[in-house]
Amino acid sequence: MSDTRREIDTLIEALARLPGLGPRSARRAVLYLLQRRGTLMLPLAQAMEAVAQTARDCLVCGNISTDDVCPICANEARATGELCVVEDVADLWAMERAGVFRGRYHVLGGTLSALDAVGPEELRIPQLIRRIADEGVREIILALNATVNGQTTAHYIADALSGSGVAVTTLAQGVPIGGELDYLDDGTISAALRSRRSF
Amino acid sequence: MSDTRREIDTLIEALARLPGLGPRSARRAVLYLLQRRGTLMLPLAQAMEAVAQTARDCLVCGNISTDDVCPICANEARATGELCVVEDVADLWAMERAGVFRGRYHVLGGTLSALDAVGPEELRIPQLIRRIADEGVREIILALNATVNGQTTAHYIADALSGSGVAVTTLAQGVPIGGELDYLDDGTISAALRSRRSF
Repeated sequence: MSDTRREIDTLIEALARLPGLGPRSARRAVLYLLQRRGTLMLPLAQAMEAVAQTARDCLVCGNISTDDVCPICANEARATGELCVVEDVADLWAMERAGVFRGRYHVLGGTLSALDAVGPEELRIPQLIRRIADEGVREIILALNATVNGQTTAHYIADALSGSGVAVTTLAQGVPIGGELDYLDDGTISAALRSRRSF
Repeated sequence: MSDTRREIDTLIEALARLPGLGPRSARRAVLYLLQRRGTLMLPLAQAMEAVAQTARDCLVCGNISTDDVCPICANEARATGELCVVEDVADLWAMERAGVFRGRYHVLGGTLSALDAVGPEELRIPQLIRRIADEGVREIILALNATVNGQTTAHYIADALSGSGVAVTTLAQGVPIGGELDYLDDGTISAALRSRRSF
């Protein structure tokens, strides 16, 4: 076994740990890269190293950027008094792709989970409470996933803020755009029916 | 749009070009890496850069390694007089994983294709002819894919070597180990029947 083979195998094992890739697809990806060493593999490696070395968590909201305070938190135009609470950075990106929300975010970094012993202290919930006073927040929009843990966390935050005078809202539940009733689960149909609105 | 966002987007686009990954899974993979910057992302980037900078094609067989002559070609014990001809490095790796073949390889780098204007000169076939004389090869084992182009290439090589005194063989076709007849295509069943052997 030569040194390259060992290096290549290390690379395959590292890639195989990414979500969506297994040992087989990681091997295929590495071969694809090896056949494009100069044009794709080296630039990709260097881009990845640059991001790995400069990226950091925003001290205010938990978003990932190159600054201690991310561009969204640094942008005064986004101090709208609305704070969107999300589970992780992926959800923040999804909200930003939709391009509708103009306020700021707060990334919890997960959900409360009795099973995994995740309590409020692990979740940047104390920082959220502090931000509400510091930034004059008027409305908290809970954009947490519609899972058991996500909803437990939403209830916990709503309870913690009751009496603070801050409005707590949550994303509407219902039929997704383009969704077909026949393919929707019973819970979604029930929620859409309960929250029906006049046409 | 900040600099990091641009760098992260470049990274997502580069990863999305890998086989088996699309824009969505590339984004998920990058987020996964961003959340493990020190433990996974930086080592992965550095491993990738090291391999990209040291890997090269073996001058003899076309395998990828860190040396001008790959470990298999450099290993005198593998000068068995048998040369296994494969389409690309992935096939060489697959053969090596099986761990049965003890000879050397010759990587064509593709198959003949009238449609894509790939002729013998593009395929390291002249190098193959030269190696047969230089290395005293007695048998050429054609381990080409069972596709139209693969089989065209096999026929071309067999023709080119007819009269050279070198035995030309090919991998057996038949029912794969663990294969169920009900799930096999007609061509495989026909081939397995034609090549039946006494039990």
